[in-house]
Amino acid sequence: MTHVNTGRRRRATLAAFPTVHRLMRPVLLAALLSLASAAGAAEWQALPMVAPAPADNPTTPEKALLGKMLFFDTRLSSTGTVACASCHNVMEGGDDHRPTSMGVHGQLGGRNAPTVWNAAFLSVQFWDGRAPSLEEQAKGPIVNPSEMGMPKMELAVDRMRRIGGYLPYFRRAFGASATIDADSIARAIAAYERTLITPDSAYDRYARGDKSALSAQQRRGMQAFADVGCTACHSGPNFSGPALPQGTGFFQKFPTYTNNPYVARYRLLDDGGRATVTGKPEDQNLWRVPGLRNLVYTAPYFHNGLVQTLPEAVKVMASTQLDKQLDDAQAADIAAFLESLTGPFPAQSMPQLPPTPGDMLH
Amino acid sequence: MTHVNTGRRRRATLAAFPTVHRLMRPVLLAALLSLASAAGAAEWQALPMVAPAPADNPTTPEKALLGKMLFFDTRLSSTGTVACASCHNVMEGGDDHRPTSMGVHGQLGGRNAPTVWNAAFLSVQFWDGRAPSLEEQAKGPIVNPSEMGMPKMELAVDRMRRIGGYLPYFRRAFGASATIDADSIARAIAAYERTLITPDSAYDRYARGDKSALSAQQRRGMQAFADVGCTACHSGPNFSGPALPQGTGFFQKFPTYTNNPYVARYRLLDDGGRATVTGKPEDQNLWRVPGLRNLVYTAPYFHNGLVQTLPEAVKVMASTQLDKQLDDAQAADIAAFLESLTGPFPAQSMPQLPPTPGDMLH
Repeated sequence: MTHVNTGRRRRATLAAFPTVHRLMRPVLLAALLSLASAAGAAEWQALPMVAPAPADNPTTPEKALLGKMLFFDTRLSSTGTVACASCHNVMEGGDDHRPTSMGVHGQLGGRNAPTVWNAAFLSVQFWDGRAPSLEEQAKGPIVNPSEMGMPKMELAVDRMRRIGGYLPYFRRAFGASATIDADSIARAIAAYERTLITPDSAYDRYARGDKSALSAQQRRGMQAFADVGCTACHSGPNFSGPALPQGTGFFQKFPTYTNNPYVARYRLLDDGGRATVTGKPEDQNLWRVPGLRNLVYTAPYFHNGLVQTLPEAVKVMASTQLDKQLDDAQAADIAAFLESLTGPFPAQSMPQLPPTPGDMLH
Repeated sequence: MTHVNTGRRRRATLAAFPTVHRLMRPVLLAALLSLASAAGAAEWQALPMVAPAPADNPTTPEKALLGKMLFFDTRLSSTGTVACASCHNVMEGGDDHRPTSMGVHGQLGGRNAPTVWNAAFLSVQFWDGRAPSLEEQAKGPIVNPSEMGMPKMELAVDRMRRIGGYLPYFRRAFGASATIDADSIARAIAAYERTLITPDSAYDRYARGDKSALSAQQRRGMQAFADVGCTACHSGPNFSGPALPQGTGFFQKFPTYTNNPYVARYRLLDDGGRATVTGKPEDQNLWRVPGLRNLVYTAPYFHNGLVQTLPEAVKVMASTQLDKQLDDAQAADIAAFLESLTGPFPAQSMPQLPPTPGDMLH
């Protein structure tokens, strides 16, 4: 997988001007620079009202409904107790409010569950960017031994096949000759996740022209967010970087500056990030840039969930990424701005799941 | 807690004629016999469209909404991973499709999770009837070490207090001076549970006069259900026994007859039932009579979840409770009738839960 690494940060720019990873192919480079430049022209962008979808998996109501059913179905886990929704609680912040997640048999995961809200707008999925799409991401946790714990994806598929009530939903979603398989399960879940967006926050209303949507403190924080340089990486409508071709990761090194107390306090060098996937030394401590929406709901913060409050998270980022030490007032202003990126979450009906055969044991 | 034990079974009667436990007070006896007689007059009763509620906890939309939020809130568990809904999945059959439940840290419970659908119509709560009301039941799993695992109820209350977004909901439900405490939490959850009823099954439509609602096999099974004697205990609109004063348990011995292969095969004498609560020898193997609705969803069956199919469950009950050995056709007919007691489940909106403070650690 290709990826972008901006390397050093530049001050006070709303655009992301990524320097390009040395392995980047020239054709992609041209596309990226053009996109980055286009992103620079727009300043504060509202979230689109509809999430983009790949050409081979357009979002339809039938597919999103099936995806919602599967997203809440604990039978996709070995014990029948853990669903996608267990760690990505869409009745709240789309995560699980734990430092790291807890899967089957009470096992602990190694990283903080990222929110599923607006994941459709991320460049790639997982903290280390190891999945290029929501479709590929959806297959991961099912077979992760400390998440949903299925020994093989085929066993999860077999469960869904044996639940007789599912087939009509797959056929409505994918056509009369559709089969239940790993791809159709993943595509339905991804289609549902593309409906999990929050385009009507106070920030979005401001960006669309309602200048009264933000408080004076939030507008101060917004300016500080740009002036301090946060927008060098947290750009675009999802604050997760520039628009890139689907599957192209927008990665950054974290921490960049280590001459501060935070690196040790929050163990920021303990996890190799992207290097744990690629094994490449140049990927050490590279991370996919996360979005910044709905942070009110997603504490504790960062890949290890060790930072508990938003003002502290702001100070850590300014210090480790921009070598700037913010005072309490500056951090509070930026946190107030970030709070304006909150919800509302769309109203959802509860899915109804088909019954389990009595001899399907967990 | 008082309870009723019919002791021996009588054949072919639609009414329950409980012989009364020797500790039963005379005043209650008179009331019970009158009720049992009244139940005998009506034959096949549809479920009421509204569940009864105690005078001190009337069901209101505001209370039911708060109760739904709490019912789905995993923060009531020690790890932040288990909610009421985890073992009582109202997106499906109101239980967890496991032989016995799995709580925090993957611990196994000792009994099959009873469905929450129509629990409002049960005489008392839990398999052993140890809670006289839904309100008292709601407090149990929160502090059960192998369920939600809170060391003390006060810690769960403290969590709900620290989630600032909850207080307005408690005030709307219980008045402007309401506080968040164990009782208000339990009363809200109970109020929500009283909305979880399924009064529009094919059986109910039949009982209300639509004689075409049941198939020929289902009507055959209905007659067999009465003729074999199942209605001696499984009477009333919920098939869980006669209407009794709130908190009065309708208990039966199970197994009654032990001269059959099922007792050993399904380990029916391994759990002392009500005696595990009271310690009284006369309560050995007494159980609160469960309802029979939505069995299509609630496999595997019985208090230990060891019986996987509905026809087998019918055969086991006929043999152990009525000393009758049903053939496959009879069991299939009765199972077909019981399937007519299925849903539909009411449409529900998904609750939205208030955010977690970043320093609330699990």
